[in-house]
Parts: sequence; C-alpha cells; structure tokens
Amino acid sequence: MNPIQNQQIVLAARPDADLQLTDFRLEEVDMPVPGAGEVLLETIYLSIDPYMRWWIRGEKSYNDPIEIGQVMVGGTVSRVRQSRHPEWPVGTWVLAFSGWRRFAVSDGSDLRRIDPDIAPPSTALGVLGMTGFTAYSGLRNIGRPKAGETVVVAGASGAVGSAVGQIARIHGARAVGITTGAEKLAYVRDELGFDAVADYKAPDFAAQLAKASPNGIDVYFENVGGKVWDTVLPRLNMFARVPVCGLISQYNARTGGTGGDDRLPNAMALIMGKSLTLRGFIQTEFAATQMDDFLRDAGQWIADGKLRYREHVVHGLDAAPQALIGLLKGQNFGKTLVQVGEP
Amino acid sequence: MNPIQNQQIVLAARPDADLQLTDFRLEEVDMPVPGAGEVLLETIYLSIDPYMRWWIRGEKSYNDPIEIGQVMVGGTVSRVRQSRHPEWPVGTWVLAFSGWRRFAVSDGSDLRRIDPDIAPPSTALGVLGMTGFTAYSGLRNIGRPKAGETVVVAGASGAVGSAVGQIARIHGARAVGITTGAEKLAYVRDELGFDAVADYKAPDFAAQLAKASPNGIDVYFENVGGKVWDTVLPRLNMFARVPVCGLISQYNARTGGTGGDDRLPNAMALIMGKSLTLRGFIQTEFAATQMDDFLRDAGQWIADGKLRYREHVVHGLDAAPQALIGLLKGQNFGKTLVQVGEP
Repeated sequence: MNPIQNQQIVLAARPDADLQLTDFRLEEVDMPVPGAGEVLLETIYLSIDPYMRWWIRGEKSYNDPIEIGQVMVGGTVSRVRQSRHPEWPVGTWVLAFSGWRRFAVSDGSDLRRIDPDIAPPSTALGVLGMTGFTAYSGLRNIGRPKAGETVVVAGASGAVGSAVGQIARIHGARAVGITTGAEKLAYVRDELGFDAVADYKAPDFAAQLAKASPNGIDVYFENVGGKVWDTVLPRLNMFARVPVCGLISQYNARTGGTGGDDRLPNAMALIMGKSLTLRGFIQTEFAATQMDDFLRDAGQWIADGKLRYREHVVHGLDAAPQALIGLLKGQNFGKTLVQVGEP
Repeated sequence: MNPIQNQQIVLAARPDADLQLTDFRLEEVDMPVPGAGEVLLETIYLSIDPYMRWWIRGEKSYNDPIEIGQVMVGGTVSRVRQSRHPEWPVGTWVLAFSGWRRFAVSDGSDLRRIDPDIAPPSTALGVLGMTGFTAYSGLRNIGRPKAGETVVVAGASGAVGSAVGQIARIHGARAVGITTGAEKLAYVRDELGFDAVADYKAPDFAAQLAKASPNGIDVYFENVGGKVWDTVLPRLNMFARVPVCGLISQYNARTGGTGGDDRLPNAMALIMGKSLTLRGFIQTEFAATQMDDFLRDAGQWIADGKLRYREHVVHGLDAAPQALIGLLKGQNFGKTLVQVGEP
C-alpha cells in the first residue's frame, strides 16, 4: 500500500508580512528507507501550531530558523509501517516530530509511545500533548494562580488558551477568556466553563475586559501580543505574572520599523511600578521533569470532564499551508490538525 | 539651639519633562511638637534617590504620588532631639523617613536604630541601607547570578549600580559596568574592581558592550531604561534575568505620545524567543525577610574590603532640589546625600 514516492512540503519563500500559499511548495521525493535500528513512520496527524510562523521568520532564538527549501517542521502522530528496531514494532502509535511529510525515518530516540486505548491518538498533539503541556507548565511554573485570583488568556477557544482557562479554574482561580465571534465566545463561556469572556474585536473590548476582571488581573497568559496585551497591561495587579508563550498577532508583522508610538517605555514603567513578572518560555524547558505529572493530571481531568477540548481537523498534507494561514488569522476553532494518513 | 521655625521643601509644580528648581518650594513652618510617646527628630542626612522623580510623576503604582504642596518624601538619618518615648532617648541615631525637612515627629514605629560605631551613620541610607539592599535583594531574588555568568549594570558608579557589580563578583560572576566619563569609568574598573566597563555615551557603545560581554549577558540589572536597555537586550542569553529596579532615563520623559518606532514588539519577541525573565521590584518586598541577612553580609563585605562605596554629599536642605536634578542627569558621583543638620 505504500506509494512509491513520498510527499513533503518545504518552505518556498520567506514572507515579510502575511503568510501566503505560495510560500510553500509540495514536493514528491523518494521514499525514505529505514536502515538497521530504524523504523519507517507514516504520519497520521500533523500538528499545526503558531510557533511555525515564528520559525519561518528566520530570526535566530531558541530554534534554528527554517531555511528556504527545508521541509517544514512539526509534531506528528505517526504509526510504524516498517521496523528494523525491536522496541518499535510495526503498527505502534508514536508521537514524533516528522514535519510536514507523509513518511519519515527514525531511530526511535525522538519517539514517544502512545497508547490509543487511553485517549484518541490525536490528543497526543493537543490537550495531552505539547499544547496542553504548554498551558500546564506555563501556569505551574510562571503563572502560579492562587485560588480567587484572576487569570486571563487570549485565544481562549484555541488549543493552548482553552486549557489555560480550564486549568486555572481547577486551581480555584477566576478564568477570563478573550476571543471573538458569537460561536467561540459561547463555547468558551458555556462549554469550557470560563467565568467570563471578552470580545477583542468589539469596540468596547476594554470595558468588557474590565467588567470581566473586577478585581484586576493576576495572571495574563500571553500568547497573542498586540492590542490585547495593551488592554490587559494597565489592568494587571501588583505582583502579576505574565507567562509569555506566544505572540501570534506579531508573527505576520513586517520586521524592522513598525511606525506608531513607542509602547516600550510605558510597558517597562508598569513592570517596574507594579512589580510584574514577564517570563518567556517554551514548554520543552519543563518537559523532562514535569511531563509525567502532566499526563497523569490531565488524563484525570479529562476523565472527570474538567478539561475539555476541541479539534479542528483538515484532511490531506496539501491542506497544511492553508491550515497554518487560517490559524494565524484566528479562523480555526480548536486544536488545528491535518489528517495526513489513514490509521 | 533649635530654631523657632522648621524648614521643609514641598512640591510646587508637577513637571511634564525635565525637573526644574522651580518645581520645589522651601517653606518655613512651625516647629512640630512631640506628643506623649513621640520623639522630635532632626534630619542629619537626607537620601536623594531616583524613585523621587517617579513619585513626582503623579502616576499611581506601588506608591501614592506626591501631591502639589506636599512635603517631598525621602529616607533620612536623624537624631532624637526631644523624647517622650522611653525606647528612643535623646541622642539616638535612627533611620527614618522624615522627608525633605529639618525636623519631624515620630512615634517610633517607623524608625530603625543605627549603631554609629559599626559604620558611619550616613551608610544607613546607602551601602548599608535601601540602595545597598536594592542591589542585594534584586540579585538574590531575581538576578540570581551563578559563578561564571555575566552581570551588567548601568549607573555603575552610583549607589545601586556600584553595589550590584561588586556583589555579582562576590558570587563569582563577571561584572560589567556601564557609565560615562573617564573618571567614573576608571573608578568602576579600578577601584570597584568590575571586570569591564562600557561608556554609554561613546559612539561605539554597542561594540564596547559586546567586547565587555563576550559570552553574552545573563543578568541585566535594569535601573536606567532607554538606550542602554536597547543595546543590552539583543545580547541577553537564553534564560537571562532582568531585575527591573528603575528607569531613570525615562523619569523626566513626557507622558503620552513618545514618537519614534514602537520598540515593544521586538522586546516581547526577545522575551519569548530567549525565555527571558523581566521582574519589576521594590526592595520593600524583601526587607521583612532578608534585611538581617543583608546587614550581616554587607557589613562583612565592607569590613573585608569587597564592597566599596562613595558618597556625593551636598550641604543644606535648600541644596536638595539641585541634588535630585543632578542625580537624574547623571552628574553626581556616588550615593547622593544632603547633609541637613550637624551630628
């Protein structure tokens, strides 16, 4: 059943503003062949995440940027289709980092086994995977919400945001979700159980946020930047914590001159005057020591109905570029996944 | 010997840019009279600190702003001249917060006894007082320099900066001091023993800083803001810590529109991409639990010659406004004190 050719999507151009379909190219290449001690993986689900846009920008930070012509990176849920490694028999479900391609070879060192009987395997990319752990570790290590405090998160219907608000509530905090559109606002409030919501596209967004956080804001889980951050910042309480996880509103922005007033002096003055903590983080920092705790806690919370999730699944590897473009524009609803292969 | 009238300096106008002498007014008022359980204090030394300019701005943060007509606030080293409190006999040296006035009344609850035999009493406002403790607590709780790491501080010849670099070296870190002028640069490098210095007014400041921090920067003790921060930010290492203690370069800035490019998106991207920690703080947060440790440690370091200090003393209460103006312009050299009374 294997096709003779493999398929992969590479970065074709480095956009300097909004990402376009033409920034990607689908390629047919030779099938990879596993050597001794290696396995052939077929991608079943590919995770689509905001950080991909960051890695495309070409700025060096915690990661090497993706080069032109390089296969797009990404976490995958894959199955072993050929095995020359005794610990990874054919049929095994694994969490991998194959990137945007149908087949890949691994020596097993970068794989984690997935038990499909515990939860649908796709959740290993979402609520029980990197995105859920991002929410969990950012709150546990940086946000540290106490009972009765107020936690605000944007992208509240999305993969990370939805988990942030629900975990905050599990800790006894008040969860305020920022999103837009009647359907998403209702989902966050009514299905996810956030205490309040605010519509960042509404003309009275600032008033909505003030009403939703009558005692100010103690934790702002930052994953969007831009206008939302400007509105949240003056409402932060003394000693508030801001885990800086993502800046999705900035990723498409041109580099260099930005125009507009310089907002940094005011932000620094508030950091100083209110004894704020801003802390950037990538979940990998905490994975080695806290992933087991997370899988145990989150598995229980899902079983108890306290941690709900929603997936936005598109089909076919060639749908991946549009899925990422839509994610960056806030068009998706839930954890964005591409179903690349059949289980 | 007491004069019949007391003297005090009040805020006469709220400047919207550079502080002026005309923003202050010297007043003669009736002498305060201690009631039962109170003491009359004479100010011997008045501390002049950057935060005073911040409190004048009229923005509400951790403090109530100073109102027009209100006596300027400030820490003082004072002596008890009349006592109706058995625990505070006449002649006692105390650390107080009398503000910009010659005499004040206290019930003792806000006083700390100073032993003039351990160190000159003026040091209770500097290296053994708030400024020294600001350096100590910011490094201990936020900067947390490890041996071999690089710690950078601006205002390196000043009260806080000089202590930051020396304490960093005591912890085994590399200390880089930023200041300007041949005399201050030489003092920081040769007398305080910093590992390297950089002149922020030099055209090649960025190159000087790069040369001074060949392994990047792990801790930036932020007390100036502005251009220095812009130059430091791209040199921060992964997981660098930035105690945000002051922003002296901003205090005289007009509020509202700033012009110039918006530097916030780039700063947020670096915070995210390098997993940086920015943490605003006021030393009072840590004083209750760590002041005893500080006095013990700093006293020993001074005795051992590892913690040196320099005082910039002007004379007479009416010299206080110019002392603050000079401090904000970087014209002073060492901890700025006004000697108001005779011991």
